Amino acid sequence: METKNIGLRDIEVADTKISDIDGEHGKLIYRGYDILDLTKNSTFEETVYLLLNDKLPTKTELDEFKQRLIDARDMPRQMQSNMRNWKKNADPMVMMQAFVVALSGYYDDKGANDQEINYQSAISLISKTPTIVASWERVRSSKDIVDPDPRLSHAGNFLNMLVGEKPDAETERIFDICLILHADHTFNASTFAAREVASTGAHMYSAVSAAIGALSGPLHGGANYEVMKMLFEIKTADNAADWVKERITNGQKIMGMGHAVYRTYDPRAQVLKELSRKLAKKTGAPWFEITQAVEEATIHEMKKQKGIDIYPNVDLYSASLYYMLKIPPDLNTPIFAISRVAGWTSHVIEEKFAQAAPKTALYRPKAVYVGKYCGPQGCEYQSIDLRK
Amino acid sequence: METKNIGLRDIEVADTKISDIDGEHGKLIYRGYDILDLTKNSTFEETVYLLLNDKLPTKTELDEFKQRLIDARDMPRQMQSNMRNWKKNADPMVMMQAFVVALSGYYDDKGANDQEINYQSAISLISKTPTIVASWERVRSSKDIVDPDPRLSHAGNFLNMLVGEKPDAETERIFDICLILHADHTFNASTFAAREVASTGAHMYSAVSAAIGALSGPLHGGANYEVMKMLFEIKTADNAADWVKERITNGQKIMGMGHAVYRTYDPRAQVLKELSRKLAKKTGAPWFEITQAVEEATIHEMKKQKGIDIYPNVDLYSASLYYMLKIPPDLNTPIFAISRVAGWTSHVIEEKFAQAAPKTALYRPKAVYVGKYCGPQGCEYQSIDLRK
Repeated sequence: METKNIGLRDIEVADTKISDIDGEHGKLIYRGYDILDLTKNSTFEETVYLLLNDKLPTKTELDEFKQRLIDARDMPRQMQSNMRNWKKNADPMVMMQAFVVALSGYYDDKGANDQEINYQSAISLISKTPTIVASWERVRSSKDIVDPDPRLSHAGNFLNMLVGEKPDAETERIFDICLILHADHTFNASTFAAREVASTGAHMYSAVSAAIGALSGPLHGGANYEVMKMLFEIKTADNAADWVKERITNGQKIMGMGHAVYRTYDPRAQVLKELSRKLAKKTGAPWFEITQAVEEATIHEMKKQKGIDIYPNVDLYSASLYYMLKIPPDLNTPIFAISRVAGWTSHVIEEKFAQAAPKTALYRPKAVYVGKYCGPQGCEYQSIDLRK
Repeated sequence: METKNIGLRDIEVADTKISDIDGEHGKLIYRGYDILDLTKNSTFEETVYLLLNDKLPTKTELDEFKQRLIDARDMPRQMQSNMRNWKKNADPMVMMQAFVVALSGYYDDKGANDQEINYQSAISLISKTPTIVASWERVRSSKDIVDPDPRLSHAGNFLNMLVGEKPDAETERIFDICLILHADHTFNASTFAAREVASTGAHMYSAVSAAIGALSGPLHGGANYEVMKMLFEIKTADNAADWVKERITNGQKIMGMGHAVYRTYDPRAQVLKELSRKLAKKTGAPWFEITQAVEEATIHEMKKQKGIDIYPNVDLYSASLYYMLKIPPDLNTPIFAISRVAGWTSHVIEEKFAQAAPKTALYRPKAVYVGKYCGPQGCEYQSIDLRK
């Protein structure tokens, strides 16, 4: 086969109004708004409203929307029992992929072809995925599950359920910004998986569960866990230059560096770098310094050895940032998911209700058969005794 | 956007050696062999070996392979308890999507980048999905779960676990042929979902769970359940002509008729039609006769009203066939899945280990941004008090 379509790069599959990336100028746009403006002025709740509704809310709309999110936070009690039956060392992404689709067994809001019902499923998923992840962290550490607190924001409530103590305002806002930054990124592999599953008429929970599966891969969302493993291995900022040099000399990649679309600094990495610097100052932790040393060493070595300009991606500074927020490193990818679920659900609604294409247009690409060929009638089926 | 790439029709995304469809001549080929030869001479177990290994097994290889399948049939006891905690009216496809990924919490065979480990995961999934579906049927009907019986074939064991009695040899063979017929069909929406998720480096269980999500959609595997609902509505063969005529006159589709790729009789429908005829004779049930009347009426009306030739697809005769095998209609799609899992797992292995493309080539198509645009800096973020 010609390699031109490998990974579907540059193949246009759909129109979208949800987000746009300008890779040349390092811009990420949600529904027309620059991500940097949103991190400065907005909250995760408002950003979710924007993604789902294609407009910023009025005060009344936002208040109503926040209440709907709060009302949807609880996880069914039976699911808590089931969680306690799981092996404590199960991969949190596996747990999440299973529980997200299982949720649909408890609710009647999965009518696949009604836009209002899909909107309610979106709210349900955006509110319950943080509860699922935090509950699992408590269960596997043999601690009591912390119920959602309706007085807290989406970000504050998650950290409270996870750690068992209310975050201070600064920490809450830092995490809120992280959630805004990860909420959408147009047709990445997980979003495309969600749309692909939804294109068959499958319901929202099923599509989002599939997206979580795609996000779990180390070439996609799994990367931010890999970054933290790298930082643990490097240990101190002084070790970074040699460690990075050896990797690059051996042709290995440095996790958290480089992106398929951005040709300049990823705007999300920019924001995360400043938040990480702030949090390091506050906590006295060494992780910002080590991460920055990795960034500098990688830029230096890539330029020197290969003449290539390279920049941090969204995973480089988020890894240590989450660690400083007392989040266990194997929850980095689940936390990516509790933010991205806002994008996934918006994309599923767009796939189901906004495409110009007829509803029968499920995604079904072509493959080139390069296997055994014995003529149009097929190969001769030989009796088993004659086979060698 | 130009509609040329809608649904990725005719976009070649990968090479495959697993299967091929000749839509013009109504041929389906697994690894070089005509599906009709396999239904005549082979068994599901042997066909699975063929799909996974790209060759027919010798006697010794087949015996060893069958033993591996038998050894992998049990479902963890804790998962049985979890199943009992589910709401009895949960959608069986949801249950399946959740339990398939949950399985990976119990096994250590999910190393994503080792071919031998992926092969073991494939065997595990092919053997355990029938146990999951049959156990769920027993649990939701408040009956005792029937353990796998190592003396029975894959087909016979499933029917025994489901119904609680060993099928006679003819019934067992009919179901075995159904499993062969549904085992693969190149890059359909669910197989593509499995490959897409696997392309991120996600593990086998995660990819197959996503495929089950895609299969659940009414535009894909969900169709065979819709066929059975249609037959219930039509009730007798005499009603078929009027019922079909009215639908077609109103521009509605007849479920089970027509296919995106076949331009002649779907070879699977041919075989299923004969099996259904046989089973109707044996059981005295009216379903074959009604189904045939639907086929004839649809062919007649489509020709008359639209000048179009149309043929049955795989779903038309499988629906009533399964019903005559005492399978509840909402399990039609799960049964499709317990066969297709052979194809999905083969495709995941091919995606991970046989593609010429570099491993970094996850599927990431392009979308065309058609949303709000206020210049390269984005739209102005207005303070909430000023919004209307």
